[in-house]
Amino acid sequence: MDLLIQTIKEEGIVLSDSVLKVDSFLNHQINPRLMYEIGKEFSNRFKEDRITKILTIESSGIAPSVMTGLQLDVPVIFARKKKSLTLVNDLLTAKVYSFTKQESNDISVSNKYLNEKDRVLIIDDFLANGQAAIGLAEIVKQANAEIAGIGIVIEKGFQNGGQLLREQGLRVESLARIHSLDNGEVSFIKDGTKEAVR
Amino acid sequence: MDLLIQTIKEEGIVLSDSVLKVDSFLNHQINPRLMYEIGKEFSNRFKEDRITKILTIESSGIAPSVMTGLQLDVPVIFARKKKSLTLVNDLLTAKVYSFTKQESNDISVSNKYLNEKDRVLIIDDFLANGQAAIGLAEIVKQANAEIAGIGIVIEKGFQNGGQLLREQGLRVESLARIHSLDNGEVSFIKDGTKEAVR
Repeated sequence: MDLLIQTIKEEGIVLSDSVLKVDSFLNHQINPRLMYEIGKEFSNRFKEDRITKILTIESSGIAPSVMTGLQLDVPVIFARKKKSLTLVNDLLTAKVYSFTKQESNDISVSNKYLNEKDRVLIIDDFLANGQAAIGLAEIVKQANAEIAGIGIVIEKGFQNGGQLLREQGLRVESLARIHSLDNGEVSFIKDGTKEAVR
Repeated sequence: MDLLIQTIKEEGIVLSDSVLKVDSFLNHQINPRLMYEIGKEFSNRFKEDRITKILTIESSGIAPSVMTGLQLDVPVIFARKKKSLTLVNDLLTAKVYSFTKQESNDISVSNKYLNEKDRVLIIDDFLANGQAAIGLAEIVKQANAEIAGIGIVIEKGFQNGGQLLREQGLRVESLARIHSLDNGEVSFIKDGTKEAVR
């Protein structure tokens, strides 16, 4: 997605060979117009898939998800990383290990909002090792719902999450795929190839 | 805001005399169309106020904020409740006590995204004791930015947050104001009055 790649080039900050900071438009400050365009792109890619629900995880997944939900006209559910006092019963839960934070968290979704009739689009901001997406997929399975696909804003193509998910037969649509962050520079994987471009 | 009040009446669950659960459209599952309408309403109420930034707090403030940001065409910043590994330096922080969770949290915003030229609209999902809004206002002041107003989706009019903020001279716009949750029923404060209506 050109606008997204352009924004990453202009505003992304490479903190190390594996960490890209996109705090100016996605993870802390949010660019609502860009989120709208991201929602439009996900919506185009999944519009034939009879999606009934979008499932994401707090907090950075919410903005792209809600813009996609607006355009597909379906509800968005965000999994919680921490148990809420008013959300205690009948939870679907999965364990997610964060390599960045080096800790394991239970994520949870109320079973009221997912059932066997649902076709779920999972959306997240980043795909690196795939742990969050795998946890969300696990929750969809617990609800006996179907996973229609996974929409990722930024995939780190040099980490193995995308491969793990695709090997499970899941359809993963990433709007920007990063080839490498070596030497402080972002290079992208060209759409439909494994070729690197700057 | 009629659509919001209607949705609260239909889907809100009164858990006690002080707790209203709106997990089906705002706090866990999100209704994107309703969020769009909420964004339109905030945008109408603040469109003359030369807003440059919206400030909210993760997670439930993000959806209404990003829809408002889309329509006012300004960036949204969400304060974090937990420190991120890639967000460590130059933080503006405030302490927020949550009566619901009975714990105190530091909330933080990078000082890169707020400065003395900003006119900030603070948005949050709920206003009860006002602690989150006061913390966000504190952060705006630390950045020497101006608070243009506070937009609240649901105000619990029977708790003192609204009064605290208005006594500080802050403009608070709440889209639904709850008069009471007594006897398991939601009654609202009629716009522009202190009168209760069902």
